Amino acid sequence: MNTFALKGNICFSTDREHLSFFPHSYVICDNGVCAGVYQKFPDKYIGIPCIDYKDCLVLPGFTDLHVHASQYAFRGLGMDLELIDWLNTRTFPEEQKYEDLSYARRAYEIFVHDLLEGATTRACIFSTVHEESTLLLMELLEQAGFHAYVGKVSMDRNCPEHLCEKGAEAAVQAAEHWIRACADRFHNIKPILTPRFIPSCTDNLMRGIAFLREKYHLSLQSHLSENLGEIAWVKELCPDVGGYGEAYEKFGVLEGDRPVIMAHCVHSTPEEAELLKRRGVFVAHCPQSNTNLASGIAPVRKYLDMGIHVGLGSDIAAGHSLSMFRIMAEAIQCSKLRWRLSDQSLEPLRVEEAFYLATRGGGAFFGKVGSFEKGFAFDAVVADDSALRCPCHLTLRERLERLIYLADDRHVAAKYIVGRAVKGQAEGLPLRKNTLA
Amino acid sequence: MNTFALKGNICFSTDREHLSFFPHSYVICDNGVCAGVYQKFPDKYIGIPCIDYKDCLVLPGFTDLHVHASQYAFRGLGMDLELIDWLNTRTFPEEQKYEDLSYARRAYEIFVHDLLEGATTRACIFSTVHEESTLLLMELLEQAGFHAYVGKVSMDRNCPEHLCEKGAEAAVQAAEHWIRACADRFHNIKPILTPRFIPSCTDNLMRGIAFLREKYHLSLQSHLSENLGEIAWVKELCPDVGGYGEAYEKFGVLEGDRPVIMAHCVHSTPEEAELLKRRGVFVAHCPQSNTNLASGIAPVRKYLDMGIHVGLGSDIAAGHSLSMFRIMAEAIQCSKLRWRLSDQSLEPLRVEEAFYLATRGGGAFFGKVGSFEKGFAFDAVVADDSALRCPCHLTLRERLERLIYLADDRHVAAKYIVGRAVKGQAEGLPLRKNTLA
Repeated sequence: MNTFALKGNICFSTDREHLSFFPHSYVICDNGVCAGVYQKFPDKYIGIPCIDYKDCLVLPGFTDLHVHASQYAFRGLGMDLELIDWLNTRTFPEEQKYEDLSYARRAYEIFVHDLLEGATTRACIFSTVHEESTLLLMELLEQAGFHAYVGKVSMDRNCPEHLCEKGAEAAVQAAEHWIRACADRFHNIKPILTPRFIPSCTDNLMRGIAFLREKYHLSLQSHLSENLGEIAWVKELCPDVGGYGEAYEKFGVLEGDRPVIMAHCVHSTPEEAELLKRRGVFVAHCPQSNTNLASGIAPVRKYLDMGIHVGLGSDIAAGHSLSMFRIMAEAIQCSKLRWRLSDQSLEPLRVEEAFYLATRGGGAFFGKVGSFEKGFAFDAVVADDSALRCPCHLTLRERLERLIYLADDRHVAAKYIVGRAVKGQAEGLPLRKNTLA
Repeated sequence: MNTFALKGNICFSTDREHLSFFPHSYVICDNGVCAGVYQKFPDKYIGIPCIDYKDCLVLPGFTDLHVHASQYAFRGLGMDLELIDWLNTRTFPEEQKYEDLSYARRAYEIFVHDLLEGATTRACIFSTVHEESTLLLMELLEQAGFHAYVGKVSMDRNCPEHLCEKGAEAAVQAAEHWIRACADRFHNIKPILTPRFIPSCTDNLMRGIAFLREKYHLSLQSHLSENLGEIAWVKELCPDVGGYGEAYEKFGVLEGDRPVIMAHCVHSTPEEAELLKRRGVFVAHCPQSNTNLASGIAPVRKYLDMGIHVGLGSDIAAGHSLSMFRIMAEAIQCSKLRWRLSDQSLEPLRVEEAFYLATRGGGAFFGKVGSFEKGFAFDAVVADDSALRCPCHLTLRERLERLIYLADDRHVAAKYIVGRAVKGQAEGLPLRKNTLA
């Protein structure tokens, strides 16, 4: 049974600017759903298993809103190029290898293993154009206990022959074949339409993707306004639209009953930002990636102030680290450099905001995810900061800030996704009976 | 006996732009001094112990050119302030605690333990104004096997009463008393004069420090042109000089037969840069700190092109991490954002350059340090990257790049300082006899 309590120092975002802390309290998982946080164990639940994480922090799960699983093999390599050169030199040669299922298995097993070790509980993931290895990745993620969206990449131009789908019609058929292959195969891993970006997709492929989006009620993920050279190229490829975002809009891919993720939005114009807001698009802010490829720094606070959905992405392998702690820290750090070097109209992000983006902000793409308020999916990360030794007393707010700057996989003592233990001693619940029972 | 060989994939900087790689080779430590790298074991040394680190990388030691040991307790905390507010709110209240020797012991033991776990072999360290706890820190560092400079801070204005030395004369006497207390007490830990920065030091204190520098032939460390508010303040305090660097020059502290370290130099004018070059000053570039306090990004390439000495500093606790890997990565990352956001005249730093800065660049402050060329002090870091799994073959250059972006303490398998094993299995050499013997 999927009903239990965790005891510890519970912390979550109530909104973008506020954190709630409940020292030595209980958070209840009732059949995979959070039934609230209590300072005193609620009578209603007496008798359920209770795991006491002592002085650890108990945090909601973290969502990585943009990550390329097929690039994990070369994380931290070739960081001396800008986007288009980097794609041609590093990315496409690697992605070709995923036609070979045995290579894909070796690579994806490492990716899923490492993802499991960290704080990430949910992710929106790019694979490659290959159906079989994409299904394999989805299987591995499902087995590991993740809830995730995975997208087989669609692209039919401006890429090497072995990755280039043979015309828009073939590419749309391949996407549809894969969508059907997913049906009834996975419980928690869902397909998401994934046209790589405008430069890799002909107009007809884009129109076909919009058609599939409507037909199958699917979400969609892609890239937008990452790099100045890329933006200029889109202008050449789509001379009849006013901007990069409008190109997506023109083909109808932003419309639909399921939300869209656009990674980056570093250089979005005011009109493009308005479009993102109107269409309810989620911006995946990828500070590490945007730094490594020297793309720039997205105006995150502007998007938040406009009411645009924003979450954080590792963007492996333009980003080098899967760690959501490190991505939160770099979101704050980048916002400071943006403020200092180029635009003092936007204040730097604060700890509260970075934590919000990594939990509720990205989690909202999955629904009620990223908080311990009642009714949210029970995703939890137990953070043990005892190895980050300190000679003086720290408040819970200070301990959380320190985790953002200093924690890594070692500090993730346990992890739960929809009430299922996926990492840590508590695997195979119940471990300990609630002593109050 | 301090003569042995290490076997592994040996890598070091030959100059700022070039790395040398010697796969499965030997580096010889002859009585604490590097006797060169050999692909075949040299006949001359047959019989000495040889430790085979298999497929690990063997790197020179790393120098942290600017770190405040007394701030380590609050690393990763209070990162929402700029320099002066941060000093008053976070730093000074913490530094007052080091009057209490038992607190200092608890705090410094953690600092030294964590420093030992990472890749740092040499460091230039600030303590506080307190003599006793400074001597304790020096003892702990000596016991751990480090070679380091440690500075008792001098300051006599613009700081809380309990940290403020009572007049220039008393402050100079306190510095001299401490210098004498160090004499013959430590083998490898040396005192370094440490006037905090112009705003904390009266003119007479600065003149007294210059006097001590000449009298005792000491090095000196301080801060320069970190933050715009700080620079404006220095201008008010020293209205008769043209700039911040000139203030130090005016009091004579830059002159001397031992080199000076100036941390930051984010906003140095061309005249100030010329002064740094003329006086042979080492710039401690602290990218993480300069980001966290929103100070800006130093023009490192300009300094290198001018022939100024540059090394890297963690600048704990304005920087949050002691990891030299992370500091190298952030040096590259910051240089990219500087290029993108504010000045395309300076190309971003490359992997080769970041590695050079962290090894030879900062190491030069200690003499022949930071390389495996013959005659250099034998400082070595054995990096085991096997846990950074990869499905494909990587070159040594790629593995080094990946370490810079992804490694942490876990990947430091062993560490040697002047031929003494301070971390890792090889402690208590000789462990294994050379099979060639």
